[in-house]
Amino acid sequence: VTDLRQSIASFVTPNSVAIIGASDNPARIGGRPIAYLLQAGYAGRILPVNPTRSEVQGLECFASIAAVPGEVDCALIVLPAEKVVAAARECAASGVRSVLVFSSGFAEIGEAGIAAQNELSQIAAETGMRIVGPNIVGAFHAVNRSFLTFSGAVAPAIGVTPSTVALVSQSGGYAGYILALAQERGLAFGSWITTGNEADVDVAEVVDFLADDPGTRIILAYVEGVKRGDIFMRGLAKARAAGKPVVVLKVGRTRLGAQAAASHTASLAGSDEVFDTVCRQFGAHRARSAEEMIEIARAALKGNLPAGNRLGVMTVSGGVGVQIADLAEEYGLTMPSVPASAQAMLSQIVPFAATRNPVDITAQFTNDPTIINRSLDVMFETDCYDAVVLFLGHAASFPSLAGHFVATVSEVRRKHPDRLLAICALGSPEILSRYEGAGCLVFQGPEPAIATLAALHRLNAPGPAHAQATPTIAPPWGGATRKLNEYEGKRLLAQYGISVPPETLAQTPQEARAAAERLGCLVALKIASADIPHKSEVGGVALDLASPDQVEQAATAMLRDIPVRQPGARIEGLIVAPMIGGGTECIVGLHRDPAFGPVIMFGLGGVAVELLRDVTFRVGRIDVAEALAMIRETRCFPLLGGFRGRPRCDLDALAQALADLSAALADPGSAILAAEINPLLVRQDGAGVVALDAVVEVSGSGD
Amino acid sequence: VTDLRQSIASFVTPNSVAIIGASDNPARIGGRPIAYLLQAGYAGRILPVNPTRSEVQGLECFASIAAVPGEVDCALIVLPAEKVVAAARECAASGVRSVLVFSSGFAEIGEAGIAAQNELSQIAAETGMRIVGPNIVGAFHAVNRSFLTFSGAVAPAIGVTPSTVALVSQSGGYAGYILALAQERGLAFGSWITTGNEADVDVAEVVDFLADDPGTRIILAYVEGVKRGDIFMRGLAKARAAGKPVVVLKVGRTRLGAQAAASHTASLAGSDEVFDTVCRQFGAHRARSAEEMIEIARAALKGNLPAGNRLGVMTVSGGVGVQIADLAEEYGLTMPSVPASAQAMLSQIVPFAATRNPVDITAQFTNDPTIINRSLDVMFETDCYDAVVLFLGHAASFPSLAGHFVATVSEVRRKHPDRLLAICALGSPEILSRYEGAGCLVFQGPEPAIATLAALHRLNAPGPAHAQATPTIAPPWGGATRKLNEYEGKRLLAQYGISVPPETLAQTPQEARAAAERLGCLVALKIASADIPHKSEVGGVALDLASPDQVEQAATAMLRDIPVRQPGARIEGLIVAPMIGGGTECIVGLHRDPAFGPVIMFGLGGVAVELLRDVTFRVGRIDVAEALAMIRETRCFPLLGGFRGRPRCDLDALAQALADLSAALADPGSAILAAEINPLLVRQDGAGVVALDAVVEVSGSGD
Repeated sequence: VTDLRQSIASFVTPNSVAIIGASDNPARIGGRPIAYLLQAGYAGRILPVNPTRSEVQGLECFASIAAVPGEVDCALIVLPAEKVVAAARECAASGVRSVLVFSSGFAEIGEAGIAAQNELSQIAAETGMRIVGPNIVGAFHAVNRSFLTFSGAVAPAIGVTPSTVALVSQSGGYAGYILALAQERGLAFGSWITTGNEADVDVAEVVDFLADDPGTRIILAYVEGVKRGDIFMRGLAKARAAGKPVVVLKVGRTRLGAQAAASHTASLAGSDEVFDTVCRQFGAHRARSAEEMIEIARAALKGNLPAGNRLGVMTVSGGVGVQIADLAEEYGLTMPSVPASAQAMLSQIVPFAATRNPVDITAQFTNDPTIINRSLDVMFETDCYDAVVLFLGHAASFPSLAGHFVATVSEVRRKHPDRLLAICALGSPEILSRYEGAGCLVFQGPEPAIATLAALHRLNAPGPAHAQATPTIAPPWGGATRKLNEYEGKRLLAQYGISVPPETLAQTPQEARAAAERLGCLVALKIASADIPHKSEVGGVALDLASPDQVEQAATAMLRDIPVRQPGARIEGLIVAPMIGGGTECIVGLHRDPAFGPVIMFGLGGVAVELLRDVTFRVGRIDVAEALAMIRETRCFPLLGGFRGRPRCDLDALAQALADLSAALADPGSAILAAEINPLLVRQDGAGVVALDAVVEVSGSGD
Repeated sequence: VTDLRQSIASFVTPNSVAIIGASDNPARIGGRPIAYLLQAGYAGRILPVNPTRSEVQGLECFASIAAVPGEVDCALIVLPAEKVVAAARECAASGVRSVLVFSSGFAEIGEAGIAAQNELSQIAAETGMRIVGPNIVGAFHAVNRSFLTFSGAVAPAIGVTPSTVALVSQSGGYAGYILALAQERGLAFGSWITTGNEADVDVAEVVDFLADDPGTRIILAYVEGVKRGDIFMRGLAKARAAGKPVVVLKVGRTRLGAQAAASHTASLAGSDEVFDTVCRQFGAHRARSAEEMIEIARAALKGNLPAGNRLGVMTVSGGVGVQIADLAEEYGLTMPSVPASAQAMLSQIVPFAATRNPVDITAQFTNDPTIINRSLDVMFETDCYDAVVLFLGHAASFPSLAGHFVATVSEVRRKHPDRLLAICALGSPEILSRYEGAGCLVFQGPEPAIATLAALHRLNAPGPAHAQATPTIAPPWGGATRKLNEYEGKRLLAQYGISVPPETLAQTPQEARAAAERLGCLVALKIASADIPHKSEVGGVALDLASPDQVEQAATAMLRDIPVRQPGARIEGLIVAPMIGGGTECIVGLHRDPAFGPVIMFGLGGVAVELLRDVTFRVGRIDVAEALAMIRETRCFPLLGGFRGRPRCDLDALAQALADLSAALADPGSAILAAEINPLLVRQDGAGVVALDAVVEVSGSGD
């Protein structure tokens, strides 16, 4: 791990940088990084490589990387695609620790470029030299002054005081856009890294590096898809443990978006649902937009994250208070009422104020700006609010009053430094920066303010205990797979503690009859065949059979008719099971995500899953507490919890079953690759759960 | 109606303005409107009234409104609350056509102010003089140069070229905020009107006025609640017929918001669901924020609204294209693929471009800016797109290239003036205004661009035919109301064409037995009592009774036990009905909204309604086509439409029933005030619907 960290550090904070394909012209791709390094006052060695020149931008130029004396931490390769592989080999041979391949013309152009990119991957794997890219715009580390990029968007960043915010992006274009947008909003970066086609170094590894990096306090990531989910999750877990907020922007959230991602060349997009689950589970915030990402980073930089989700609202106009209450509800913040005694104090400060929360201090504050700090003080003193939003709107820049307003909010900040004060204000950048200088979070409109406060709260909310650990990901299964018939599948699940009905696998109608006689109750008869996933469609299910005679008849008919209806299907017997009713049907799915490993899905059966997709996911192995949290997340949960006089279902047994199934899937020795239990019948409290049907897929090539 | 229009015009475009409480100090409330009028070059008469002065700001000042010579269109009342009523009476006596009451201290301060406000309402009703306010910041009409307001936010508006956008707002504070925000975004208003406490003139009437006003092309409304729904709907219908987009911002969308609205003094908030229905039904766009409202107005001002929802996307970075596809899906836009031949042309223009839609022209356009117009031209020529979004991001302001980019998009606009081109661009206001000057809609980020295009499309989508007409609103029912028992209620619904089971109202167990014998099938027995809304809770429902004996026994038990369980409940008989099954249970609700009149609600029964609130509404009387549209809006609609092998339900009969019920409610002669049919059983296609249970409330005081 330390070696891996150092290998990343070799290009994030290099002591020496070679530029292969160096240009004397600072406007060219091979010239701009040199110009940036010179302009930034980079203290390490700058080593231009170009066989046609002896000097580049006033620096000694070398004919080849082999000719460069001393150790080279990082080499930028700025050559036509066809020369890149050879250059990378030379770098590796010369002991260069990492290369940044700016050149495009690899996997992003399709077949033609994939072979060359694979060669780069191989060089990295064989030599240990790290390769970033190809098809990147580079990286910078502002404290180290290493601006290893040709991105025009970086130029203004060179003169700016660095922050502790780091950005890693799979797209160079998007990284430039985020940088430009951040500059507009007054946010500087400490480091900024693009990973492009990811022949070797990937976004997961950089996140993992940044989680450990003492110079980084806030991590932003633009992601199109993650291949190495274990490293990504490890990084998120470490960042969370270190109290570093991680904000991820991943595109491809919707059906149309996934389609677009699939046709976006060299895309890495996997299952968005699983990715989303990983973010929630490991406490990263998933942003919808670059704007949102930047707002959160700006706010998080200010320091303390809110300890809870209790929002106080103070406005100068009643309607805005209602609008903010709408937003609070949508973003999951609560708005406790101001306690009666404090309301009385507010009424003394401003007669006719609305005092309940939202507090409306009316236009009176223009006559007496101290109304602002006195009222805010009352609100904070109640200890009822983790954050307060003060909406001033255009009043924030009333010419004769803005200075007074700034002074009053500044006083509040001094008195309550541990709370958050967000201000909605319109005005010139100069005026807004005065409010920022007073220690407030400043937003133009209510929605970004509330969205940001809610995100900060969630980033600070304690995660489930297991999310601190890195899940073990079994190596992806490359071998043959095999579906089990329902009987076999349920026997396998039973080995992991899942209740199944006391059922028999009969081979003849007579055996089925005998089994039914032993059961002595209403019976279900089902065909057992791994080749028939939809049994009822071929007449392979008979329910509510009341007598052994009926069972025998139905069995005879199935064994006669099904081979005709589905020729070639291997019939492995007839399942004779007691009819079991009186519960709520749920569905549980298990699969192994190629990037993130074991995934468990839970939902209520029928309409909820089929039509509303009211399902919830977890990755890795979950415990009973986490399983309960998962169950409660579904919108239809009240149906299990005793909604409108329904009997309360056995939630404990359901949670135990989910935990057992997750263990069965996560167990490195387990043969289970995927399973769907549908329905899992959840019975009344105390009566447990039972898997009525299941499709299980295992590794192996059949019996 | 003409008189009403003229009465509104008297304060929107007055020819003479008196200021009662005129001040020589332009910083004071009584002085600022005069200063604004003078500064604006108002051509009408400015008539200060103040008994203590003979001259105000260089104008002749009158001792009283009675002393003012000639006709006065509009008088501003800028006096302490306690003097307002007398002043209004004087104005009415002097023939003033309208007054704007700036003073606060009326309903917004509670009981103390309500009486005085009611007096103002009465003066308006008795004299015909229109009263705007109290508690307003005023109004302006920029073409008429009548700036009748003391709002500081208006000062910059005086020097700006007016647009055809009008704003009406119930809140003066919010109106000022919107104005300041619009100024920041370069949007001017033509007229700007606040209605405050609405003692007389209300937001509905102003919307109605603006719908007819030839100087207004786009109407924005900030609304806390609408009292006169008929006028509001008439205004929306007229605006739609005239092709004028209406954008409404109404706060109080959520539970928390509604709570806040309820405690927001002098609030008018009604049912948000009904208000939302009215907006959708009459084609108004409901905005979430002032920012959204302004973006839509800016874009709509540019001219053509998109004819369809087909979005083309062109980007300079693949990931952004995916992000925009995500947004398109969320906002209901489609993204048809570029036809193959056009894709080939795009590939010729930019090798390695993604050509399908989103189109990614890669960073090549920095080498050759004509790539932009040539590629856009190919997209528009396909005739596949109503609007194209071009994402340039920070590239839009690359120093040496921005001019070329502006020229290329300008060329595209000239060639395709009937299409919309939206550009996402970062840059200084100067650069962005050059893109705007080229005829593009310019947005900073993708989300406002897509949200705005989607809103413009919906504003242009043809509405249902009936929305062109104004619904008739029966006068609110002030008299006594009465609940019917289930039997009576269903008989009444049957009169309006709703199928009900062939059931009998029996008075004795023997009559019940005889009725069951006549039915000769499985029977349901239910207690008939308007006093027992939840029959099963008192043992008042027995289902699946198989024999006349069972019916008689059950009837005997009910008549014996229920009077004990619910003493005092009037028992009106026993309903003997055939058991009817085999369909999908739906729920239909009818009620009369105090502002908007008849409202019909539809949803699928059970979980969908109870847990997910998957219901949909219409106001007024709906026809069968609209009823079908309503049914299809529910998320659970597929359960009726043949989802996953379920039988298709009788949608025609369901739609007919909804139309009949809406007619029953809207019928001015109808006694029905409210009803809930739950369940309305929808049977297989061709088998109709049947109301299995119903609670009906009628006007009248019992029998």
